Amino acid sequence: MTLFTLANPVFAAYAIAAAIMILKLMGQGWMTVYQMLRADGGFMNPEDLRRGPANPNPRPEQLAPDANVERSRRMQRNDLESIPAFLAVGLLFVAVEPSLGLARILFATFVLARLAHTAAYATAQSHEIRATLFSIGSIAVIVMAIYVLFRAL
Amino acid sequence: MTLFTLANPVFAAYAIAAAIMILKLMGQGWMTVYQMLRADGGFMNPEDLRRGPANPNPRPEQLAPDANVERSRRMQRNDLESIPAFLAVGLLFVAVEPSLGLARILFATFVLARLAHTAAYATAQSHEIRATLFSIGSIAVIVMAIYVLFRAL
Amino acid sequence: MTLFTLANPVFAAYAIAAAIMILKLMGQGWMTVYQMLRADGGFMNPEDLRRGPANPNPRPEQLAPDANVERSRRMQRNDLESIPAFLAVGLLFVAVEPSLGLARILFATFVLARLAHTAAYATAQSHEIRATLFSIGSIAVIVMAIYVLFRAL
Repeated sequence: MTLFTLANPVFAAYAIAAAIMILKLMGQGWMTVYQMLRADGGFMNPEDLRRGPANPNPRPEQLAPDANVERSRRMQRNDLESIPAFLAVGLLFVAVEPSLGLARILFATFVLARLAHTAAYATAQSHEIRATLFSIGSIAVIVMAIYVLFRAL
Repeated sequence: MTLFTLANPVFAAYAIAAAIMILKLMGQGWMTVYQMLRADGGFMNPEDLRRGPANPNPRPEQLAPDANVERSRRMQRNDLESIPAFLAVGLLFVAVEPSLGLARILFATFVLARLAHTAAYATAQSHEIRATLFSIGSIAVIVMAIYVLFRAL
Repeated sequence: MTLFTLANPVFAAYAIAAAIMILKLMGQGWMTVYQMLRADGGFMNPEDLRRGPANPNPRPEQLAPDANVERSRRMQRNDLESIPAFLAVGLLFVAVEPSLGLARILFATFVLARLAHTAAYATAQSHEIRATLFSIGSIAVIVMAIYVLFRAL
């Protein structure tokens, strides 16, 4: 039987969760761009100080870190520590044929935890809230990885 | 029908694009190694100052950032913000059965934009060129993710 | 024939290797959390200095880099430079139907090199040992990517 098609509802659930997470990840890059435009700074490369349409008025302090740009970069790094792992483990999870209910719960848990983590990080919520949401997403990935390992061994 | 085999020309196109992007990503790591050898510095770990075959003449300034090493690291971080997302979304795109023409255009767009971005970044081209190439690659991923979402929902 | 099921021993070998690498990657995030708790510092966000259950005694120096926390973060960044690439290339490798023996050797080489790299990095072994283990893992990924490219072209 072919598991990796939209005819398999577990795969369809994975495809939706994965597409949302990929959009989230790419969107964070654009958020960094937006924050750099807003700050007119937070650049990282010496050549970014060349005069041009994107920077009509270059100044050395544009290479200094900007709080909002750095926050967006930290959020993206945080995403990169778990979203690629989720994308891979979710596909493996489809391959080991879990129940549709379990798959939906774990996929939704990861996606919602990550979106809530983004909202909490962007609005500088307290460490406890961020850590809780990070943990929920991380545990969803770990549960799927252990499940795959037990089924494959 | 099994979509994930080389008998499916959309999958074959994905496999070629993905393999090139994986080689690009791994190659950037080796570029960082090369730049560290050339600079005889740009190291990040205190233990890298131990005398040994790789470092016969250790000096504290080897832990200072080196411009070329840091550039290669930024290029790799930039890759990591989009190549893993492309690898995942490309596979999902294969699964939702796009036309071969559309798949080839989007895969080629991402690969060429990323290779051109690498060339522009390595040679310190202006911010506008780098931003344009980043945007093209990012939009290719976003288009595929939205297409997957619409097909799967 | 469907390649991406546990009935295919090459896929089963990939699933085991991938699940171990995903657990390694997620585990490194928890190692960073553990090192932050141990150091009571190494934080990155201004809001982490708010008083709360996770930080009953906030002090500005908690935002200074801590050697063990930074080491764990460098280890995670190092993982992120190769584990997502391995997860993607391993799946492509399954799709091009290598011999079971070759697949097992390459998957095991990557996994063992990466686990040994982690042990070497965590215990601050010399640059040469770390570089050797990094190279072995990187070459395993590169070999698989080139193999996929030749089969798909």
